[in-house]
Amino acid sequence: MDEVRDFRYRKGMSSEELFDGISKIGYQGLNLGRAAEVIRKMRKERAKIFLTFTSNMASSGLRGLFAQLCEKKLVDVIVTTVGSIEEDFIKAHNEQFYLGDFDADDLELGKKGLNRIGNIYVKSKSYARLEEELKPVLEEIYSKNKTPTPSEICRELGLRIEDKNSFLYQAAKNDIPVYCPAITDGSFGFQLLEMRNKNKDFQVDIIGDMNKIATEAGIEQKIGLIVLGGGVSKHHAILANITNGGADYAVYISTAHQHSGSLSGATTREAKSWGKIKDEGDAVTVTGEVSILFPLLMARVIGGSSR
Amino acid sequence: MDEVRDFRYRKGMSSEELFDGISKIGYQGLNLGRAAEVIRKMRKERAKIFLTFTSNMASSGLRGLFAQLCEKKLVDVIVTTVGSIEEDFIKAHNEQFYLGDFDADDLELGKKGLNRIGNIYVKSKSYARLEEELKPVLEEIYSKNKTPTPSEICRELGLRIEDKNSFLYQAAKNDIPVYCPAITDGSFGFQLLEMRNKNKDFQVDIIGDMNKIATEAGIEQKIGLIVLGGGVSKHHAILANITNGGADYAVYISTAHQHSGSLSGATTREAKSWGKIKDEGDAVTVTGEVSILFPLLMARVIGGSSR
Amino acid sequence: MDEVRDFRYRKGMSSEELFDGISKIGYQGLNLGRAAEVIRKMRKERAKIFLTFTSNMASSGLRGLFAQLCEKKLVDVIVTTVGSIEEDFIKAHNEQFYLGDFDADDLELGKKGLNRIGNIYVKSKSYARLEEELKPVLEEIYSKNKTPTPSEICRELGLRIEDKNSFLYQAAKNDIPVYCPAITDGSFGFQLLEMRNKNKDFQVDIIGDMNKIATEAGIEQKIGLIVLGGGVSKHHAILANITNGGADYAVYISTAHQHSGSLSGATTREAKSWGKIKDEGDAVTVTGEVSILFPLLMARVIGGSSR
Amino acid sequence: MDEVRDFRYRKGMSSEELFDGISKIGYQGLNLGRAAEVIRKMRKERAKIFLTFTSNMASSGLRGLFAQLCEKKLVDVIVTTVGSIEEDFIKAHNEQFYLGDFDADDLELGKKGLNRIGNIYVKSKSYARLEEELKPVLEEIYSKNKTPTPSEICRELGLRIEDKNSFLYQAAKNDIPVYCPAITDGSFGFQLLEMRNKNKDFQVDIIGDMNKIATEAGIEQKIGLIVLGGGVSKHHAILANITNGGADYAVYISTAHQHSGSLSGATTREAKSWGKIKDEGDAVTVTGEVSILFPLLMARVIGGSSR
Repeated sequence: MDEVRDFRYRKGMSSEELFDGISKIGYQGLNLGRAAEVIRKMRKERAKIFLTFTSNMASSGLRGLFAQLCEKKLVDVIVTTVGSIEEDFIKAHNEQFYLGDFDADDLELGKKGLNRIGNIYVKSKSYARLEEELKPVLEEIYSKNKTPTPSEICRELGLRIEDKNSFLYQAAKNDIPVYCPAITDGSFGFQLLEMRNKNKDFQVDIIGDMNKIATEAGIEQKIGLIVLGGGVSKHHAILANITNGGADYAVYISTAHQHSGSLSGATTREAKSWGKIKDEGDAVTVTGEVSILFPLLMARVIGGSSR
Repeated sequence: MDEVRDFRYRKGMSSEELFDGISKIGYQGLNLGRAAEVIRKMRKERAKIFLTFTSNMASSGLRGLFAQLCEKKLVDVIVTTVGSIEEDFIKAHNEQFYLGDFDADDLELGKKGLNRIGNIYVKSKSYARLEEELKPVLEEIYSKNKTPTPSEICRELGLRIEDKNSFLYQAAKNDIPVYCPAITDGSFGFQLLEMRNKNKDFQVDIIGDMNKIATEAGIEQKIGLIVLGGGVSKHHAILANITNGGADYAVYISTAHQHSGSLSGATTREAKSWGKIKDEGDAVTVTGEVSILFPLLMARVIGGSSR
Repeated sequence: MDEVRDFRYRKGMSSEELFDGISKIGYQGLNLGRAAEVIRKMRKERAKIFLTFTSNMASSGLRGLFAQLCEKKLVDVIVTTVGSIEEDFIKAHNEQFYLGDFDADDLELGKKGLNRIGNIYVKSKSYARLEEELKPVLEEIYSKNKTPTPSEICRELGLRIEDKNSFLYQAAKNDIPVYCPAITDGSFGFQLLEMRNKNKDFQVDIIGDMNKIATEAGIEQKIGLIVLGGGVSKHHAILANITNGGADYAVYISTAHQHSGSLSGATTREAKSWGKIKDEGDAVTVTGEVSILFPLLMARVIGGSSR
Repeated sequence: MDEVRDFRYRKGMSSEELFDGISKIGYQGLNLGRAAEVIRKMRKERAKIFLTFTSNMASSGLRGLFAQLCEKKLVDVIVTTVGSIEEDFIKAHNEQFYLGDFDADDLELGKKGLNRIGNIYVKSKSYARLEEELKPVLEEIYSKNKTPTPSEICRELGLRIEDKNSFLYQAAKNDIPVYCPAITDGSFGFQLLEMRNKNKDFQVDIIGDMNKIATEAGIEQKIGLIVLGGGVSKHHAILANITNGGADYAVYISTAHQHSGSLSGATTREAKSWGKIKDEGDAVTVTGEVSILFPLLMARVIGGSSR
């Protein structure tokens, strides 16, 4: 058994050294250290890595890190919800999001044209901008393909952006598919509806993407999951690999707990009863908030092998 | 200001009296009492009531209560995830789910052909049964309509079931639409894929449902939301009403917290900054686990107006 | 394995029937059902039952239920924090607490002389009243005993109250000791300090209570723990029984989770590694908020054996 | 309003740069950034800083950081629970704690003589060692003072240790008082009891410490609170300053939530209704697990003013 090590700050400590110190403290620090080990193994074994995240994360500054992971080809597949697509696209058009307060007066914010996402504010007019920018792109997509899949739409959006901090841009550029099974569940849904009203034969082919994501990983290939938060993004990445015998490696980071029986709070351990993660699979669940834990973790993973 | 009242159990207490006692204790008991008030107002004002829940809830015995709410026409619209559809359908074919343990040995369960959902177990072969039963239904649906929406599929499933505890059955019987925007995200997705492989022109028309749910409530009509848990079900019901100026009444019950900025943990207060709930809307967020809180709450609501 | 049962509300359902329905739903409903079984065993085996709770619970209407449990001799020992003592005593002097809001404007409340405990408000002057009432009692206690233990002080307070909803009163009347190891940690602490300033030889003998609580249960006797929330109350009840080989039965109800490694979030399972609960001990952890769960549970336990 | 900034990892990033990046992401990252600002103000204004933590933290590697904060005189007062005292003292005698698993088999661990604290294991014999080492020290203390306060006992323990990673040692060396109002609530309590059995006039003078802590801060002095986790440590530090008009600055870090009304989950906002934090006081609540958040935060604070 490894020993708990008393942590001390050292002047000039690098982010990697800080991480290594934290990983010997115990509790979630220890689990985070184990998550770094699991991701290291994914990479060493050249596993196909699925990254999933929820919309609020793309609203936050984590967006840049997701883009960077695509740029560095550290992930192979992305699964997310449509809010992520919308907000990545908005930001790529120079709309800013703002640092605010959880305890703000929401009626006051509403009057000022600000929408609150936890302690982040977005201007209502940023969403108006979204609509305006999306329309011509959707027209173009339709002119080429009357039944695009959500991942095809995401790719087309990415190809029309130039922003190194956009995950849509970096994913498109690096041939990383972005899956979004519930693509109508956002402003985007209203845009798709408008397209349909003009073009009766316009369909979003969600079954096409089901086919594509379920065959992402070959039978021979190792599979790794990096699951941030819960919801449909989490479930979909797990599901997609079930016919391949489940993931070989998995890291879940979430604030949700298992006690309600929700999939969002389900641990990597529960996944083993389903064959969602292989019996002998390396898997770790870290409980905590992604805006802090994920940059810390990826700094260690990207920062390399000093340990 | 109302006073906190010291709670005492009384022999022969009805479930309604128990509820009323709890609602004067403080903390979440107080919030639950307020939730009953808000639902009472929804009904008095003949609001259109959207009920949303997550798959784990349909896996649990809450399924019977959801069915009963449809039977009694206490809700008008359902939004859920595909796991709910699958498990309601499985149970309607006499497959049982079992009471188990959060701390079970998952590898042992897997070997026994049991899948764990929190502390509920499902046999793997129940899912095989699902596939078998679904196939002919999907064929029939396709023979009538090559591009059904998810809510049309749910209705067709409901019409083929006879189980008073099935929400699909009761919803179909009582003309309550069941929306499921992420319908590929489950075993169901693989079934849809198989259909597609046989029939290249088979599409699930998610845009069609977007149109339908967005026009559920007329502009004149009051809107009420009963949101259990988070995820796409929660978001979709809120979104669908945004173009109508937001909900008039809302009750959220969830174990999620706002501190991660996720929509799942977002409170009714945050919704007001977005116009998702009207400024003057009556809204309450109850923090807690639905398997206990929702039956207690609905016993009070159905049980009537002794207070 | 027992089957999950679909829950349906039935007109005229008693609180016991509601409970039994909930206990077959799954998740925390199932755990709560198991908690009732464990408490039933405690009683059948005539175990010595330790009840622990935190101050916020005595501030709430749970106070009446704690008093009723003493009155009915359903518990044998109480362990709590000094806030509970203070607020029980205040209420016994007809000071009211009020039902409020978690989202209140705290500066406004402060200006109005209201202190907020979650969504319960207490008048500042209720604490002034506390001081006034306590002073003569402490003088009297000192005149009889210069080094009383906390449990002796609690008993003396209880003997001077007449309020059937006061747990101090009912405990004193029914010879149930109330332990409070951190008795200085409240307004009470300032009162004790004032006494000391007048009487240099005044000591609160916390070691005396350590002796008393550690010998509450004889070696032959079965021990049951009902632990509501965490903190020093939880730890102290567990600790007191460690030299007797640990508890035979335990029910923990708390919103805290194990992931931080805190004792407040520690499960009954962790307790077994310490010998705090006997290996073969019946124990269950219910995750949730006590203001709702405990009345529901005790309604079932007091309501008797219809199942 | 400040803008959300897209985070990117940069090779060779220092821990301070990592922190600054995280503080612009949003959600708890933003709150953690604000916590650093508040602590910076505490120091700039030469506030008297109270640090509180719970026992599980001293069991973990955070112990070294607590010691370092004393060594660097970055904190002025410590409030904790007796488990912290015990485990700091044990470790100072070369007993090791081990990195383990939350999901361990507790009966197996118990058989191997291991006790589990979350995912940290401690040998049972380490506690036997504690008893052995404590006995002569308590005898010595008694020989000098028949009624020592808890803080005097802590100081005497610290003076007998030589371990730079011990907070008792560093606190004693740097004249930082360690308060522990519930000193009987641990193995320590049994040791005190044994002393009493030998020496009838032995008392632990908890009222003496109440006097001392309540007068720590002069009326003129600014007060800062750094509160890690909840429980009696949190409450006691807040309480001690209430007669001085409340704290000027406060940082709370905890996994607990406000929804149960517990003091452990109470926010800095609630504290303002009580005058526990001054109306105009700078205060921030960070939700998350201390084993990761606190080292990250203090690396920034100690690391200095690059921002």
